Amino acid sequence: MLGLMQDWPLTVDRILDHAAEWHSSREVVTRSLEGPIVRTTYSEIRERAKQLSNALLELGIRPGDRVATLAWNSGRHTEAWYAIMGIGAVCHTLNPRLFADQLCYIINHAGDRIIFTDTTFLPTLIEHRSRMPTVERFIVLTDEGGVRDIPLDGVLASETLIEQHDANCQWGGFDEQTACGLCYTSGTTGNPKGVLYSHRSNFLHTLVTLQTDVMGLSVRDTVLAVVPMFHANAWGLTFSCPAVGAKLVMPGQKMDGPSILELLETEKVTFSAAVPTVWQMLLAHMRETGARPTTLKRVVIGGSAVPEAIIRAFHDDYGVDVVHAWGMTETSPLGTLSTPTPEIAALPFDEQMPYKLKQGRPPLGMQLKLTDDAGAPRPRDGVSFGRLKVRGPYVAGAYFKGEGGQILDEEGFFDTGDVATIDEAGAMQITDRAKDVIKSGGEWISSIEIENIAACHPKALMAAVIGVAHPKWDERPLLLVRLKDGETAEPSEFLRFLEGKIAKWWMPDDVVFVDDIPLGATGKIDKKLIRQRFEGYLLPIATAKAG
Amino acid sequence: MLGLMQDWPLTVDRILDHAAEWHSSREVVTRSLEGPIVRTTYSEIRERAKQLSNALLELGIRPGDRVATLAWNSGRHTEAWYAIMGIGAVCHTLNPRLFADQLCYIINHAGDRIIFTDTTFLPTLIEHRSRMPTVERFIVLTDEGGVRDIPLDGVLASETLIEQHDANCQWGGFDEQTACGLCYTSGTTGNPKGVLYSHRSNFLHTLVTLQTDVMGLSVRDTVLAVVPMFHANAWGLTFSCPAVGAKLVMPGQKMDGPSILELLETEKVTFSAAVPTVWQMLLAHMRETGARPTTLKRVVIGGSAVPEAIIRAFHDDYGVDVVHAWGMTETSPLGTLSTPTPEIAALPFDEQMPYKLKQGRPPLGMQLKLTDDAGAPRPRDGVSFGRLKVRGPYVAGAYFKGEGGQILDEEGFFDTGDVATIDEAGAMQITDRAKDVIKSGGEWISSIEIENIAACHPKALMAAVIGVAHPKWDERPLLLVRLKDGETAEPSEFLRFLEGKIAKWWMPDDVVFVDDIPLGATGKIDKKLIRQRFEGYLLPIATAKAG
Repeated sequence: MLGLMQDWPLTVDRILDHAAEWHSSREVVTRSLEGPIVRTTYSEIRERAKQLSNALLELGIRPGDRVATLAWNSGRHTEAWYAIMGIGAVCHTLNPRLFADQLCYIINHAGDRIIFTDTTFLPTLIEHRSRMPTVERFIVLTDEGGVRDIPLDGVLASETLIEQHDANCQWGGFDEQTACGLCYTSGTTGNPKGVLYSHRSNFLHTLVTLQTDVMGLSVRDTVLAVVPMFHANAWGLTFSCPAVGAKLVMPGQKMDGPSILELLETEKVTFSAAVPTVWQMLLAHMRETGARPTTLKRVVIGGSAVPEAIIRAFHDDYGVDVVHAWGMTETSPLGTLSTPTPEIAALPFDEQMPYKLKQGRPPLGMQLKLTDDAGAPRPRDGVSFGRLKVRGPYVAGAYFKGEGGQILDEEGFFDTGDVATIDEAGAMQITDRAKDVIKSGGEWISSIEIENIAACHPKALMAAVIGVAHPKWDERPLLLVRLKDGETAEPSEFLRFLEGKIAKWWMPDDVVFVDDIPLGATGKIDKKLIRQRFEGYLLPIATAKAG
Repeated sequence: MLGLMQDWPLTVDRILDHAAEWHSSREVVTRSLEGPIVRTTYSEIRERAKQLSNALLELGIRPGDRVATLAWNSGRHTEAWYAIMGIGAVCHTLNPRLFADQLCYIINHAGDRIIFTDTTFLPTLIEHRSRMPTVERFIVLTDEGGVRDIPLDGVLASETLIEQHDANCQWGGFDEQTACGLCYTSGTTGNPKGVLYSHRSNFLHTLVTLQTDVMGLSVRDTVLAVVPMFHANAWGLTFSCPAVGAKLVMPGQKMDGPSILELLETEKVTFSAAVPTVWQMLLAHMRETGARPTTLKRVVIGGSAVPEAIIRAFHDDYGVDVVHAWGMTETSPLGTLSTPTPEIAALPFDEQMPYKLKQGRPPLGMQLKLTDDAGAPRPRDGVSFGRLKVRGPYVAGAYFKGEGGQILDEEGFFDTGDVATIDEAGAMQITDRAKDVIKSGGEWISSIEIENIAACHPKALMAAVIGVAHPKWDERPLLLVRLKDGETAEPSEFLRFLEGKIAKWWMPDDVVFVDDIPLGATGKIDKKLIRQRFEGYLLPIATAKAG
């Protein structure tokens, strides 16, 4: 027997409709590429997005067609999103930090018909235009003057299109499973793979993240969305802010300390979200200048592990609460957050720190499991490593065009490729990437944990740890160190430094000093390249110290 | 094109699964009917609910079968809910405050096969057993001793069933549109009608109400659920508390001031929800004894309009924030809440009061419209009355077994039967029931507003206003007053009292002193009966004062 409640498909156009109806004059503020602060409102954004939808329809865009955006966070970018999604087309966010080859691969793979772009990226698009045969039009987020004399065939100005079309456009009215967004994973192995979000998944992700213990946004919040719309949906803020009518502030291209602080203060920001690097720049700027945020209450930080120094500086110096989060493109992206249980919240701040350093607990709608390589469950004791697998209504079930084949296990869980622990309080901590973890005698060693400690050695500029083949133990850790300029050191200095800080059997079998530790496109250590460089490396000690 | 996210039906068993996995030891505390406080946890509740599910399966319950509950709020009642819903049967909550005739009508209409009941209600069930032919079994929420010698055929003890069955039971795995709950409206006109909730509607209602600006529950909250599970889903608390892992406290049968205060204090309650009457009893008790709540932060009050005195007493005397809410059985039930916008929150408390007295704004997922009788939109100016209509994924689309026929308008909105205003800030205020509003010369007069003011006259014990036929103006207001014992008064005293407090053309055309103002089953003034009593009443003034 089915229930008798109303049929009301969860499509994201309803989110902006809600904002325009109940929070019509709430501001969306952007630092424009041209410099000045630009102010608009949710009702204006909806009006202009509908005009853009009509332009897309006239340009022949139909439901299911992919329309890309290559743009910084802005009100105009937001308009493009809703214009595309509202008519059932797929909004494909392009990451401008990718190399041109990857960008072209992704555009072709997606079959993008139109690309919305900021002027910033015109040189790249012009240079590689011939490699994007599926693209018919480039809509530059600017006015007519901004596209004059641009040597790019098919170029149009968004402001002109908006002027030329009326706002009378039917949005939604389709199945909530309809594809809504497309975002490719950075693809450290193999080609980038596309995650194809549905209206339903984005809507549910929005509702789940609005819970008090997740993002907890309110109509009384002013949100600085530093985290980019071009990667992992700006952690959902482009949906969750209009959903509750929070004022939305967007930094455009400028994410340096002074620019961020200026926006925090002039717009009276209460909440923000970004990766650690952005906060490091902001904290450094504030330390240097003595300036401080006066309205900021909470920041959600994710993308990579948050160093204790950031959590402490925000708390001790500025009274700002840091929430540590974990997620990925495949999880829409929010997976877990370190919001405290009552037991943790009751502890003195120093005793809360071990939990704040973990990525935290999942909300309703996100299921986690921790398994060994064979799929058997691992204990939730805070020390046992396992592969982290996830399931839920906003977790990828397959990649676009079937890339990667079947990606779910027999229970329907997606393997994140991360290795993690979960403690008795339910707090998850990422310990390594599955492909980087070192498997020694059937036990797993975290490469990240060792290199993080080694990097704290006063002579070290940077450290990396990889597993190297070992006849008895399968793999053993090898520590690579790039010393600070002018320093010299012996391996034993580093091994002594590690003693007592890691388990004895985690101790690297060798230490090698190198001139260069390579980084990938996203700024993380490129272990794949390091492993290639050290393939066949012979450890100096035939019998391992481990045992 | 459809998205490629995971298939994860929104079924409510997942809510308790989540609580048992991530908040396993969080307590559910009940004041038992026997007196003592009983403590259990989400994981124990899930375990026992699964045992009960197996008992239901053995008793022949299949998906779609209706299983009723007639019980106070308790951990055992919660177990019964999840036991029923988890296997795809329909949990039909029976309101013990209904007359036996209504109760029997509802049980027969629903075709309930089993009734879970508290011992409290055994006398009623025994007396009317012969009028419930569809009912095969009565499962009393007690142990074997509690059902010994009970003269009720088909009686079983829940504790015995739990002992006899194991907890290995498959929950969920069905379509999220599957019927989940059934609750009949009190039915002031015609027979009671059943609202048939789906798993999807309950799950979405849960997520929507967990938003910070709605119920805003957190794992750090301790929630006293005074609002009954037997009516309108306890405002969703039976789902939303386990969804976030909030500690759940339930008062059983005792809702008097001292009992409520005791639970607030001993269990360190931070949040509660109830109708105004409960709070009036609590406030009276605290005033008398000088006792005060020390951990309570926020109360959500709905069911009927919240008097200013309650809001003030909580705020001024105890530092507790009151959130005014509106909803109905057909809206799952939460429709709107008076959580403030930043503009309202910035006002001094006295200036916030007009907004706190309104029922507030809708969250994403609840659409409101205000129309005249012909369906044309009414302005949102805070003074124009209109019929309040609602649409959303947890709003009724039809009643059980087609009662009442087609209940949605051509845009898919459900007519609430309430008359309301919506102001420029988006705050909705119920002004009357549509059938009670007085239509005078094409304009609408709120019967409730006049009677609320008249009831403040020092000589009045109670007041009621109805519309009486008028040759020129269609209807004009008639004020009925029941004076306090021993008082006498002239009509003119009441008309003078109203002067300046209501619009001139709202002034009643007559005042009649009566010995009795009848109340309905839910404690509200029975206007239907009053209208019957005053049918054909001739107003003394042939030409109305209105103009």
